Amino acid sequence: MEIRISLNDILAFEKQDRTNLVNGLSGFKSALLVGTQNKASQTNLAIFSSVVHIGANPPLMGFIQRPASVERHTYENILETKFFTINHVPVDYYRNAHQTAARFKREQSEFEAAGFHEFYSETFFAPYVKESPIKIGLSLEEEIKINSNGTILLVGKVQEIFIDPSYISESGNINLGSARTIVVNGLDTYYKTEKIGTLPYAKPDKNILT
Amino acid sequence: MEIRISLNDILAFEKQDRTNLVNGLSGFKSALLVGTQNKASQTNLAIFSSVVHIGANPPLMGFIQRPASVERHTYENILETKFFTINHVPVDYYRNAHQTAARFKREQSEFEAAGFHEFYSETFFAPYVKESPIKIGLSLEEEIKINSNGTILLVGKVQEIFIDPSYISESGNINLGSARTIVVNGLDTYYKTEKIGTLPYAKPDKNILT
Repeated sequence: MEIRISLNDILAFEKQDRTNLVNGLSGFKSALLVGTQNKASQTNLAIFSSVVHIGANPPLMGFIQRPASVERHTYENILETKFFTINHVPVDYYRNAHQTAARFKREQSEFEAAGFHEFYSETFFAPYVKESPIKIGLSLEEEIKINSNGTILLVGKVQEIFIDPSYISESGNINLGSARTIVVNGLDTYYKTEKIGTLPYAKPDKNILT
Repeated sequence: MEIRISLNDILAFEKQDRTNLVNGLSGFKSALLVGTQNKASQTNLAIFSSVVHIGANPPLMGFIQRPASVERHTYENILETKFFTINHVPVDYYRNAHQTAARFKREQSEFEAAGFHEFYSETFFAPYVKESPIKIGLSLEEEIKINSNGTILLVGKVQEIFIDPSYISESGNINLGSARTIVVNGLDTYYKTEKIGTLPYAKPDKNILT
């Protein structure tokens, strides 16, 4: 039996309960690792579940960064260097990915602390995660303030991708099931996936409901 | 063996191949249904895979809307009425959800065309999807132009939620596995999920890697 939870109910919750509840409302999310380094070559790696597709031409991706009221190494490194990487997490590394969320000191790299290895391409500044099956290098295109709560949407343009071509279909689709990428429910519960089906391009006069 | 795909490679792809490839880069996404109606009571329902968590206090969610160069019924209805709903899709309805992506005429409601039923709460203007296990009513808070490609981030504030309380844990977490919410790979391939594990709050001195 469904219940109604109002905005006032949500605002009256304990902080952690509210955080957990609202984090679940957007559904399953990809848990992706954002890699950066500052100009002094101190690397940083952090898990984000707020990555969103912005557009394909040009190829743009964004993610939500919380307010910079406390130390935000990822955000500071991106502003300082204009480059970052987004790295998919395979099932076997979900614990490592989660561990990057701990508040490590600036001088400690989450790569080493969480059991990942850095990979650098010849022409790109930011560090990739060697263990990641899909590695994306991006340049900062736009920083957009969300006035409703002071968060920031960082928009990056894809500069290069490292991927096993066996994950890409003839029509360009990336097979995330083959790459065994994880999803996250809320802040701490991880899931793997199982394919249901691929559907044809939807048209008003085509019945795919059976 | 990994290959490198450069920005120039991506830009040289056929349009549909590029669209498919870049849509996969952000990983698995929740496929959610956005419900609206205009002032003349014409309802609309559309699948979106770009919903993103913006913040918990106040509870804010956003989604990316493509440029309004063609008819965008969802976007027009939200601007006209300031209200919309976000509805989770259970596994059994993934074909119905996909079908809402077809270009139906304005005077035809995707609710009926795709086999869903409207549900209205006593105090909220926009239509919910009766078949959805997690229904969220939102008011438009902010419309943010993304200059890099002309898309728009629509930010809504959660006004009410309809959910079976058995899906909510004591700590406020929503169990999306129990709700059997789908995820989507790219534009057309749907997956169900299977839980791997729940991890404790990450701390630098706590080893969760074993």
